[in-house]
Amino acid sequence: MKKSDVVKMIFDHDLNKERRREKGSAFAPTNIALCKYWGKRNVELNLPVTSSLSIALPDKGALTTVSVCNDVSDNIVLNGNKLNQDTPFVIRTCQFLDLFRANTKWFLDIDIKMNIPVAAGLASSACGFASLILALNDLFNWNLSKRELSILSRLGSGSASRSLWMGFVEWHAGVQADGMDCYAEPLRWEWPGLNVGILAVSHQAKSVSSREAMQRTIDTSALYGSWSKKVAHDMPLLKQALQNKNFSLLGGTSESNALTMHAAMLSSWPPVCYFLPETLAFMQKIWKLRQEGLDIYFTQDAGPNLKLLFLEKNAGDVKEQFHDIEIIRVFP
Amino acid sequence: MKKSDVVKMIFDHDLNKERRREKGSAFAPTNIALCKYWGKRNVELNLPVTSSLSIALPDKGALTTVSVCNDVSDNIVLNGNKLNQDTPFVIRTCQFLDLFRANTKWFLDIDIKMNIPVAAGLASSACGFASLILALNDLFNWNLSKRELSILSRLGSGSASRSLWMGFVEWHAGVQADGMDCYAEPLRWEWPGLNVGILAVSHQAKSVSSREAMQRTIDTSALYGSWSKKVAHDMPLLKQALQNKNFSLLGGTSESNALTMHAAMLSSWPPVCYFLPETLAFMQKIWKLRQEGLDIYFTQDAGPNLKLLFLEKNAGDVKEQFHDIEIIRVFP
Repeated sequence: MKKSDVVKMIFDHDLNKERRREKGSAFAPTNIALCKYWGKRNVELNLPVTSSLSIALPDKGALTTVSVCNDVSDNIVLNGNKLNQDTPFVIRTCQFLDLFRANTKWFLDIDIKMNIPVAAGLASSACGFASLILALNDLFNWNLSKRELSILSRLGSGSASRSLWMGFVEWHAGVQADGMDCYAEPLRWEWPGLNVGILAVSHQAKSVSSREAMQRTIDTSALYGSWSKKVAHDMPLLKQALQNKNFSLLGGTSESNALTMHAAMLSSWPPVCYFLPETLAFMQKIWKLRQEGLDIYFTQDAGPNLKLLFLEKNAGDVKEQFHDIEIIRVFP
Repeated sequence: MKKSDVVKMIFDHDLNKERRREKGSAFAPTNIALCKYWGKRNVELNLPVTSSLSIALPDKGALTTVSVCNDVSDNIVLNGNKLNQDTPFVIRTCQFLDLFRANTKWFLDIDIKMNIPVAAGLASSACGFASLILALNDLFNWNLSKRELSILSRLGSGSASRSLWMGFVEWHAGVQADGMDCYAEPLRWEWPGLNVGILAVSHQAKSVSSREAMQRTIDTSALYGSWSKKVAHDMPLLKQALQNKNFSLLGGTSESNALTMHAAMLSSWPPVCYFLPETLAFMQKIWKLRQEGLDIYFTQDAGPNLKLLFLEKNAGDVKEQFHDIEIIRVFP
């Protein structure tokens, strides 16, 4: 099964029918997984081993505008800078676009405005591919459902499947070989008082891509076998926490889930370690503050930055402890 | 089964027969596990879930001298300082001694000279209990075998069972409920060119004892279930490395084993983290040096310090990179 086969299943009509508008445009938020996606059951289709659960950051993400150009290649402008054709980001994006132009050739001017650092563990590819598929749907008037768009964005980047909604989102691992049951859906709960704080440790691109790190974990970590058990344990707890607004359950489960993902990486060979010394210093500060009674937890993705979880009522205390933190209300 | 039952099994003769000498004295080296001991199948008897493999540090350890005193309690002097009766170290030592004075009462003057920091992840309890049991054997003329002494020292501290020999030592997990098949033995291989470097990050006592950390890992870590698989994978590789003098296999397997133990701790709740920011900075330096071609690996125990593994021929390069390192030739 190839990506192009999935695209064919979704588009029963002719992709190239001229229904297109002048421009397509869409914003997609970045998302922070509270239960992580780590490991693929199918690498080609980005089908995950486990389900995952995320929260969208409403003001952080990618705004993508696309229009058909007269050129013989795609032009990508990221935050005002035209990207060179041989950058990995451009190559990956063009390969994704190729899925939708099997028969006729068109090329796009793509303008992406992203207000998060690229490739620093802040899910830039998630919001990037999600906003791109939404913008394509808009440009070509595909009129696809969110579920179909979730499947298509997943072909670009696994976690992009979750970036099509605000609020809490669950991405179902599914069991089918073609991944047609592997899409994300919004969860019904809201949590107005919930805050996420971004503690930036480094904006540098990571030395090992999450894609590579994930595969290395599966191939070499003796602990990876226990990961799906961890997810099976954590997912119902997270939903229970959302339903009952049990913050310490939400925070504790999220932090433990993230640490377990990083633990599995540490036991890979060569070891994959996204902790920087500063990351660890922040972790220890968080553990100390929590011991002292402040209700604060963290999660961490494939990069050195931490994302803090806390309630609005504690935002003042958190800001006092972490001067450079960027606080985001996830239900503004 | 209690500790005292094990002691009875070993001492078929009367413990209190007056064969004792004026003084008993013994040195025991500390040991660094290359395949770690993490988790007990029996907490009372310190029976481990898995076997482990260690290397002794010949000049680092405890020299213990014991003599019967006229007092009504044991007096312990550690590095010249008389310890207060209510310190955990004294309480634990006296409880250990109680095992050998069930019928008659004697009390000891115990002088311990230890040239490693206590409770900082440098196996002070291992060499402490090993030297104590050797000194008792000497004082009371028990004339026990090393295997029996290994079992007895294990009742004081699990890893003490390995500290009765120089060189490479294997501690067998055993399967019996009474632990009579759970003892250490020296391995036949030597490796004259092997060096261990101690990178001291902190001499402070750890915030969570290894005893508590171990139990918390078993009780709460979703990854602990995979630990015995990791050991089953690593033990034959380590022996193969020793047999063939394959240094990168020895170093890589040891480092991965240690990281996997710390990984299991990280996934505990509350998380157990013996990494300090400085620990991590050293790790990253080691990984970088290795990428640049220097054959250097590390292991880490329940504390923030790192122990580096390298060959004599690289000792100069290592010293140049780590000025404060203490280099130990393990086969002097």
